[in-house]
Amino acid sequence: MNHFLSVHDVNDLNALVSAGLAAKKTPFADQHLGQNKTIGLMFFNQSFRTRISTQKAAENLGLKVISLNVGSDSWGLEMEDGVIMNGTKAEHVKEAAAVIGRFCNIVGIRSFATLADQAADYAEQVFHQFRKYAGVPIVNLESATRHPLQSLADCITIAEFKKTQRPKVVLTWLPHIKPLPQAVANSFSEWMHQSDVEFVITHPKGYELAPEFAGNAPVIYDQDEALKGAHFVYGKNWSSFSQYGQILTEGRDWMIDDAKMSLTDGGYFMHCLPVRRNLKVTDSVLDGPQSLVIEQAANREWSAQAVLREILLSL
Amino acid sequence: MNHFLSVHDVNDLNALVSAGLAAKKTPFADQHLGQNKTIGLMFFNQSFRTRISTQKAAENLGLKVISLNVGSDSWGLEMEDGVIMNGTKAEHVKEAAAVIGRFCNIVGIRSFATLADQAADYAEQVFHQFRKYAGVPIVNLESATRHPLQSLADCITIAEFKKTQRPKVVLTWLPHIKPLPQAVANSFSEWMHQSDVEFVITHPKGYELAPEFAGNAPVIYDQDEALKGAHFVYGKNWSSFSQYGQILTEGRDWMIDDAKMSLTDGGYFMHCLPVRRNLKVTDSVLDGPQSLVIEQAANREWSAQAVLREILLSL
Amino acid sequence: MNHFLSVHDVNDLNALVSAGLAAKKTPFADQHLGQNKTIGLMFFNQSFRTRISTQKAAENLGLKVISLNVGSDSWGLEMEDGVIMNGTKAEHVKEAAAVIGRFCNIVGIRSFATLADQAADYAEQVFHQFRKYAGVPIVNLESATRHPLQSLADCITIAEFKKTQRPKVVLTWLPHIKPLPQAVANSFSEWMHQSDVEFVITHPKGYELAPEFAGNAPVIYDQDEALKGAHFVYGKNWSSFSQYGQILTEGRDWMIDDAKMSLTDGGYFMHCLPVRRNLKVTDSVLDGPQSLVIEQAANREWSAQAVLREILLSL
Repeated sequence: MNHFLSVHDVNDLNALVSAGLAAKKTPFADQHLGQNKTIGLMFFNQSFRTRISTQKAAENLGLKVISLNVGSDSWGLEMEDGVIMNGTKAEHVKEAAAVIGRFCNIVGIRSFATLADQAADYAEQVFHQFRKYAGVPIVNLESATRHPLQSLADCITIAEFKKTQRPKVVLTWLPHIKPLPQAVANSFSEWMHQSDVEFVITHPKGYELAPEFAGNAPVIYDQDEALKGAHFVYGKNWSSFSQYGQILTEGRDWMIDDAKMSLTDGGYFMHCLPVRRNLKVTDSVLDGPQSLVIEQAANREWSAQAVLREILLSL
Repeated sequence: MNHFLSVHDVNDLNALVSAGLAAKKTPFADQHLGQNKTIGLMFFNQSFRTRISTQKAAENLGLKVISLNVGSDSWGLEMEDGVIMNGTKAEHVKEAAAVIGRFCNIVGIRSFATLADQAADYAEQVFHQFRKYAGVPIVNLESATRHPLQSLADCITIAEFKKTQRPKVVLTWLPHIKPLPQAVANSFSEWMHQSDVEFVITHPKGYELAPEFAGNAPVIYDQDEALKGAHFVYGKNWSSFSQYGQILTEGRDWMIDDAKMSLTDGGYFMHCLPVRRNLKVTDSVLDGPQSLVIEQAANREWSAQAVLREILLSL
Repeated sequence: MNHFLSVHDVNDLNALVSAGLAAKKTPFADQHLGQNKTIGLMFFNQSFRTRISTQKAAENLGLKVISLNVGSDSWGLEMEDGVIMNGTKAEHVKEAAAVIGRFCNIVGIRSFATLADQAADYAEQVFHQFRKYAGVPIVNLESATRHPLQSLADCITIAEFKKTQRPKVVLTWLPHIKPLPQAVANSFSEWMHQSDVEFVITHPKGYELAPEFAGNAPVIYDQDEALKGAHFVYGKNWSSFSQYGQILTEGRDWMIDDAKMSLTDGGYFMHCLPVRRNLKVTDSVLDGPQSLVIEQAANREWSAQAVLREILLSL
């Protein structure tokens, strides 16, 4: 693996899931791989799980870790080519990427959607520029449109808990008070399309994901109908793609509770965290035996380790 | 030792002080103990000595360290159970604690008093919630009501410098321009009650510590009277407990100077730092041979190392 | 080497450059030197290259690294002696320096010019105070008037790319939209005076560097004239020293472009980064084969490693 920006950088998804599960069993078996190598983690946005799990995974592999909060630790970066830099951005990504690529063997980047400009967000300029100029492998720590380390952790979790060969997985929109990016939903959908599952999406009308992410998954606008027989219920809020970045409906009746879960086939509840309790999903579901949210988060360490391991092997 | 939240988690205070002094002599003797283990340090508030000394101590023991500024590196945490999370807090402590407990073998937390609500501060909700949900040992890096790593460093310092078997130790209130928490004073008092010292508290009327911390220590409202014959003068400002969080008196005459120190029995001056010079204590005292403030701060490394060592031994 | 605050702390500049080039070839050859030792990095200002390159260099040498953003991670420091500390600064440098000197074997500090008070900036109080009170070697990560780790990286870069024994090096002022410190220009000048080069300075009238830094270098107010025959063009903006901190001229015609570079003797373009493209220098120059800016930045790792190595050898 060279870069890890999306599922399209993965050669063999099953092998990567297996590598994650192997890392979970013997976390320090590959500690020599990262010896005398360094990963730089650049955060354009806040991070809790991703920050910690990626650092943990890197150190499990013997890597040194350098973390940087862009814009507070250092300065803002200009992403556009050809501009006269007489504004607030003191440094161009051409230099910043090339320089960090000289100091670090791998560079992880987190840069969220602004939700102000669909075309700009979906162009993923930050990642394209870093991939172009850093000269080293780039790892997506959540971009405007994707969160592949989360999606891989989700696949690992499903692999651990599935009871049937081809489980039914339902991605369901949940209510929220703020407009959120589509990244996690996009990415999960993209990874499910590469997995041996029956994949269904449910959301209120107007929340259709971008076609390149939704793919040919059935979209059901009746949540109860969609949940029937589910083995895994994957909850997430996202703002509208077509009316970009907008909240179209309060949707309080889309919150997952015990009654909704009882429609499933003893299904598990999944969510990438953070999750707003009693707004997106009830305490009773989150605290019940069917919730996988902590296991999912814990698997972030093993998804990062599987990815970094494969990158290190190809350096 | 499982958790380290207060002196009540300590089985044998003398043994812990001795472990600190041993670490000071041979800092790297236990470097194998932390091998392939990680401590997470969560800062809800600023930190200088605690941040550095805890990281140093952890690394002396072979631990990996992950530090996190909650609220800037990551997001705010909801501490209340059962609420509908439709406000500013994006994540519940139930998830945050459980997740960091999956990534880290030990979790250190700093979370100060707000001084707005006595009952809330003294309930120490942040620490109770993390202890309840993290599933790993929690270390108090200063809570609303206590600063036990400081208190242990103070005990180590007194052990190093005492010239009599049972020295007289005076905790004295000092003037300040801002309302400060009672945590350091509370904690010091609590640890002195477990130590073989003659312990006296002096402060202007109205600054009585909470009864569970003051215990049965004599409270003398005349500072000069209290300082007589002291072997250790422990200075600190705190705001009122009864008129919670208020400054009741400017108290400029409570500043420690050479004249005050001359009332003692060749006593040492102690303060936990940071200290405001010439407001709480004069330059001449701080820069004189009787000041132990730097040694006290340096001993923070050994107090943290003694505590982390004992926790690692019990994992 | 004890402290590294300026070129005056360097015994043998050629040997230090050679040590940097040796580190570049075999980065991990001295990994034992830093074993069980720690460097503390204190940032009073933002940092990207310096933060990462110094951490990299330290870890190459086996050092542990503790980074601290002063004022956000911890609190503001009072630098003046003898004051009554009843303002916004909670801690005095006497304590902060002494304490970090007890925790760390080496302390690196970044503290920029305020550009508000020439005498204060040029007194370099922060560094004098830390040198006085820390009790351990201090490394300048950019001070109000100097950036010696950058200057050493520049010397390493010139040593790598020079084609003649005694190249012509031109320091040229470049336009900018904000008043910037003189530190990089001062420092570069100071180091060039110790190097076997023909050194020339060019800038608009009024931008004369402080005499102790400019030394006896010829100052040419006609940029084209100065560039003639140059082997290295070192671009940088700085605000006026005499009319302290002011921008005296927009100076758009001082931007380096291909036409200007064609006046040189096949000269290289150097700049310390960050650089504002198409304001200070054109895309075509930065992206062309004569630009050394990335190599210069990459050499920051080796300049830091050469300095830290020499300090470790003298501990």
